[in-house]
Amino acid sequence: MTLPAPVRIDDPSDARIAGFVAIKERDLTGRQGRFIAEGTVVLRMLAAAHRARRGIVAEAILLLESRVAGLTELLADFPADVPVYVADGRVFDAIAGFNMHRGVLALGRRDAVPDRDSLIASLPAESLVLAACGISNHDNMGSLFRNAAAFGVDAVLMDAASCDPMYRKAIRVSVGSVLTMPFAREGTGAALIERLQTAGFAIWGLSPRGTVDISDIPPAPRTALLVGTEGEGLPEAILSGIQTARIRQRPGLDSLNVAMAAGIALHQVALINGRI
Amino acid sequence: MTLPAPVRIDDPSDARIAGFVAIKERDLTGRQGRFIAEGTVVLRMLAAAHRARRGIVAEAILLLESRVAGLTELLADFPADVPVYVADGRVFDAIAGFNMHRGVLALGRRDAVPDRDSLIASLPAESLVLAACGISNHDNMGSLFRNAAAFGVDAVLMDAASCDPMYRKAIRVSVGSVLTMPFAREGTGAALIERLQTAGFAIWGLSPRGTVDISDIPPAPRTALLVGTEGEGLPEAILSGIQTARIRQRPGLDSLNVAMAAGIALHQVALINGRI
Repeated sequence: MTLPAPVRIDDPSDARIAGFVAIKERDLTGRQGRFIAEGTVVLRMLAAAHRARRGIVAEAILLLESRVAGLTELLADFPADVPVYVADGRVFDAIAGFNMHRGVLALGRRDAVPDRDSLIASLPAESLVLAACGISNHDNMGSLFRNAAAFGVDAVLMDAASCDPMYRKAIRVSVGSVLTMPFAREGTGAALIERLQTAGFAIWGLSPRGTVDISDIPPAPRTALLVGTEGEGLPEAILSGIQTARIRQRPGLDSLNVAMAAGIALHQVALINGRI
Repeated sequence: MTLPAPVRIDDPSDARIAGFVAIKERDLTGRQGRFIAEGTVVLRMLAAAHRARRGIVAEAILLLESRVAGLTELLADFPADVPVYVADGRVFDAIAGFNMHRGVLALGRRDAVPDRDSLIASLPAESLVLAACGISNHDNMGSLFRNAAAFGVDAVLMDAASCDPMYRKAIRVSVGSVLTMPFAREGTGAALIERLQTAGFAIWGLSPRGTVDISDIPPAPRTALLVGTEGEGLPEAILSGIQTARIRQRPGLDSLNVAMAAGIALHQVALINGRI
């Protein structure tokens, strides 16, 4: 198979790579659904998402010239009309605005974003959902998606107070799972819970004050695991209206990080429901 | 209870706070066992570690003046001979060398570091150990300690290729567990395994290619969970000589982050052995 030759870029102000300029300073997620993918693992997920034609589009790829030879196979996963640009280290860093030692970037676009209720309506009869309220840290957000993908979650549903998973760092930490996992981020936590209840989901709020051990969550055709903000966890107003589960741990310590807690609980719930 | 009044610092070059200067640039861990603790949660763990008199000594505390009023109770946990310095925002940032929005720092010292074999010899008849080879990322290191503490691990044992858990960021991510969890870091992974086997530990290497599900690890008086480097995991030379376990997950994805995998596996092993 013959690929089009990559286009060499020698001028950091070249209009063709304008979308990659100063990506560290800019949060692209506000601009018409644009996002930045970093590194080979995420690039592979982007290729898969692009081929799946579910709203994720690869627009352009920018590589450090020394990386091109090792990426032939991966580049062949993209359609020939996705341009591939290459630059030497000096030009590459001048474009990106910081030392990108990975040397692998792609610019993408998310079209056709499903709204929350359509996404819930599209879920299969047997579903596992990760729901989250007020997640403000992009590392945690990315880690939540990585865990969701690993343990067979069908969709991630967040309130509007949660940060954007399409932010560069969240995509990277998710090892690209943000690009393939269906998600919606809108409305309040209370509205999200109400919609999930109406759709027949057993909702389990994860909290150190939960009443049931995660190992004892009963199997159900539709289960939603709900996690709260990094600092305070889920508010009492939400916990008092749903079933709650806890992860056993030694007393007297800070509760686990939200992404770690979600990973442990999702693993257990996925086992209980035969999803892994 | 009356505490000595904090000492006000107006000059960033004041010799009394020299230990706090430019802490971002310096890795203190090489200097006579000195370390930096950041934030109130870690400060609380430092107070506990200091009182336990097992080799961790608090030397000095430096606070942003606006934080002092809220920390009276916590400061009372330290002996009166640990000096408390306060500074305004400008001086504080000039000392620390970066914008320390937490405004809570302590300088500590780790004396009386146990060697690996003494630590193994000191473990109780029923023990759970986390062993690690080649962990190079301080976030992961801190997270491993946080999980170890949460799930009742008795000691963390690392090879010499692993990074130093006493580094500021690792201590912070561990929420101070590094200060209270017994650990040793020396020698090769092979030597560590040999010592643990001699001490009667059932050793389980965690790997995506593991043969037993983590849920099926049998209970044992002494269990050691072994995890490998972030990228490659445990090498075949080590995996081929021990029992191996895996975490079930959806196929076709990158394996879980090492700290996440260790958290999930430690939770399971701790349940199996009735430690949580």
